[in-house]
Amino acid sequence: MKNFYNLNDIKDINQSIDEILDIKNNIGKYQKIFDDKIIGLIFFNPSLRTRMSTYKASKNLGLEPFFINISNNTWSLEFEDGKIMDSSNVEHIKDAARVISNYCDIIGVRSFPLLKSKENDAEDQIIKSFIKYSNIPVFNMESSIAHPLQALTDLVTIKENSKVKKPKVLLTWAPHIKPLPHAVPNSFVRAMKKMNFDISIANPKGFDLDPTISKGLKINNDQLDAFKGVDFVYAKNWSSFENYGKVSSNYNDWIVDEKKMAKTNNAKFMHCLPIRRNLVATDNVIDSEQSLIIDQSENRTYTAQYIIKKLLKNG
Amino acid sequence: MKNFYNLNDIKDINQSIDEILDIKNNIGKYQKIFDDKIIGLIFFNPSLRTRMSTYKASKNLGLEPFFINISNNTWSLEFEDGKIMDSSNVEHIKDAARVISNYCDIIGVRSFPLLKSKENDAEDQIIKSFIKYSNIPVFNMESSIAHPLQALTDLVTIKENSKVKKPKVLLTWAPHIKPLPHAVPNSFVRAMKKMNFDISIANPKGFDLDPTISKGLKINNDQLDAFKGVDFVYAKNWSSFENYGKVSSNYNDWIVDEKKMAKTNNAKFMHCLPIRRNLVATDNVIDSEQSLIIDQSENRTYTAQYIIKKLLKNG
Amino acid sequence: MKNFYNLNDIKDINQSIDEILDIKNNIGKYQKIFDDKIIGLIFFNPSLRTRMSTYKASKNLGLEPFFINISNNTWSLEFEDGKIMDSSNVEHIKDAARVISNYCDIIGVRSFPLLKSKENDAEDQIIKSFIKYSNIPVFNMESSIAHPLQALTDLVTIKENSKVKKPKVLLTWAPHIKPLPHAVPNSFVRAMKKMNFDISIANPKGFDLDPTISKGLKINNDQLDAFKGVDFVYAKNWSSFENYGKVSSNYNDWIVDEKKMAKTNNAKFMHCLPIRRNLVATDNVIDSEQSLIIDQSENRTYTAQYIIKKLLKNG
Repeated sequence: MKNFYNLNDIKDINQSIDEILDIKNNIGKYQKIFDDKIIGLIFFNPSLRTRMSTYKASKNLGLEPFFINISNNTWSLEFEDGKIMDSSNVEHIKDAARVISNYCDIIGVRSFPLLKSKENDAEDQIIKSFIKYSNIPVFNMESSIAHPLQALTDLVTIKENSKVKKPKVLLTWAPHIKPLPHAVPNSFVRAMKKMNFDISIANPKGFDLDPTISKGLKINNDQLDAFKGVDFVYAKNWSSFENYGKVSSNYNDWIVDEKKMAKTNNAKFMHCLPIRRNLVATDNVIDSEQSLIIDQSENRTYTAQYIIKKLLKNG
Repeated sequence: MKNFYNLNDIKDINQSIDEILDIKNNIGKYQKIFDDKIIGLIFFNPSLRTRMSTYKASKNLGLEPFFINISNNTWSLEFEDGKIMDSSNVEHIKDAARVISNYCDIIGVRSFPLLKSKENDAEDQIIKSFIKYSNIPVFNMESSIAHPLQALTDLVTIKENSKVKKPKVLLTWAPHIKPLPHAVPNSFVRAMKKMNFDISIANPKGFDLDPTISKGLKINNDQLDAFKGVDFVYAKNWSSFENYGKVSSNYNDWIVDEKKMAKTNNAKFMHCLPIRRNLVATDNVIDSEQSLIIDQSENRTYTAQYIIKKLLKNG
Repeated sequence: MKNFYNLNDIKDINQSIDEILDIKNNIGKYQKIFDDKIIGLIFFNPSLRTRMSTYKASKNLGLEPFFINISNNTWSLEFEDGKIMDSSNVEHIKDAARVISNYCDIIGVRSFPLLKSKENDAEDQIIKSFIKYSNIPVFNMESSIAHPLQALTDLVTIKENSKVKKPKVLLTWAPHIKPLPHAVPNSFVRAMKKMNFDISIANPKGFDLDPTISKGLKINNDQLDAFKGVDFVYAKNWSSFENYGKVSSNYNDWIVDEKKMAKTNNAKFMHCLPIRRNLVATDNVIDSEQSLIIDQSENRTYTAQYIIKKLLKNG
């Protein structure tokens, strides 16, 4: 694996899950194996879990993490090729990526979509430019359309908590007040498909995911019906793909509550966090014994540690 | 000690002072005793001394410091219980505290008061929520109403510089242009009381501290009279408690100057910094041989090192 | 060397170049020689190369880097002596510098000029105040009028790439949209003079550098003529010194392109970065085999490592 852009970069997903769990359960075995290497963590957007889990993963491996907060304490970047740079962007990604490659041994990049143009966001220009121009491995800490570290973590968490080999998993849309990206649901669906789990999606009309992602899956517009008998409920808001980037307050009854959870097969509740309480899901659901949200966040560390190790070993 | 919220968490104050001075004088003895643990340093407000002294203390102990600047490079937090989170705050403290607990081994928190509601500030909600929801030790790097790391440092500095066992200490109000919190004077008074030092307070009418703090102490509205014969002058502005959060420019003659210092028993001058020169105190006083301000800032490192060590050893 | 303010602090420039190249070529020889010391890196302005190269240099030497972003996560500083501090600045440099000196073993400072008053900028107050009030070594990470780490790096890069002992070097002004400081060209010219290289300057009328810097050098207002036969072309914009801080869009044809480069003696192209592509120089020039910009950025690490080592050894 040269770079980690999305889950397709992983050849054997089951082996990856096993190795991540091995890191979790034998943390000492993987300590300090890359002493004195520098990991550059480039953030175009805010982050708590990704910042901290990647930091911890890096420290576990013996790496020195260097945070780069773009436009905050460094120069703003230009991504258009051949442009006459006479506007606000000060440095071209071509140069920045090559320069950073000289100072680091591996780079992680987070950059959210603008949610204004479906086509632009689909190009995933920022992370792909870093991959193109860097001389060192690059991994995705959430791009416009993919969040593979989260999805891999979610797989690991399902694996740890599933009583059956092929669990029934529901990805349910949930209410929100702001337009949110498709990166998390996209990558989650891709992960479920790779595992051949029994995945279905519940969302209101007009909120279907990118059809190339949801192709072949059952999309249920009746949320209560969708909850019936599932083993895992993964809640997440996303903005409309069809009516790109739009939100609606017409579906606030899509909140995940105890009544809906009661329809499931005693399902576990999952969310990637941050979660807006009593809007996306009720306090009772989030704080129930079925809730895996804290486990998910903890597992982010081991997943990051696995991916960074793999990239540095070019394995 | 499970958490360090205020000075009441310290059982034997004299033993603590001795241990802090032992750390200062035998720095090698306490080096690298917690290798590979992570300390989360959460700042809701700016800081220089606290950032640097806690960083240095952490490095001395072998800890890896991870700074979290809330609302700057992470999500803004909600503190109200049971709220429908449909406004600007993105993540609930319940979840953030539990998540951070998984990535760190100990947390320090700084959050200033808004100085708008006496009752709200008295609740000290931010630091107390971190204590409530975290699974790991939490220490106070200055909350709405307490700054115990500063007060403990000030005690150590007085101990180092006092010729007598029970020095006469004056806490004097000083001018300022902005409403300042009560955290520093509150904790300083609590420290003086714990040591049974001969502490008195000078402030203009209308600027008495919270009466539960100043109870039993002499409050002098005649500043010049208050300076007479004291061994230590601790200058600090605070906004009105009575007329909550208000400032006044009527008392700019309360500046600490050489004329006033001449009334003392050759007193040492103290301030927690940052200090506005020629407003709070004159250059001549601040730069005099009697000034302990730089010693105070240096001692912050050893105090932080002591508290962090104690918490991690649950001692 | 007690502090590193500008190139005049270096006694033997040739020996310095040799030592920097030795660090580059024998990186292991200089690893971890200052374990457990803290380096404070104080930024009043954004930075990518300086942040990362100094970080890497520090880590190579075993130092712990502590970044201080003034006015972002700490207090704003006052520099005027004797002032009544009743405006926005919260802490005086006198106190901040002494406090920081207690927490660190060495300090680097970056602060750009305001480009409003020639006299004020020439005083270089910020870096000079840190030098004056700190008790520990201070080095310049680009001040109002000098960028010696860049200039020393450029010398090293020329040395590595020059086929002759005394190369012909052209410093050419290039177009820009914003008023830029004189720090880089000032220090570059000083470096060329110290080496006794054959340096000339090309700039439009009204854009001569500070005459105390360019004294004795040929200044050519005919850019094409200036390119003839040179071995190195160093491109850089600077605002007018005469009409202080002003820019002009009348000279956009001063862009460095292949046609101009063809007049040289197969010259290498240099720029300190960030570079605005197709404004300062064309993509073709920047991406040509003659371009040394990435080498320059890489060499920043070794130069920083050399200066920090020298200062900590007081050598």
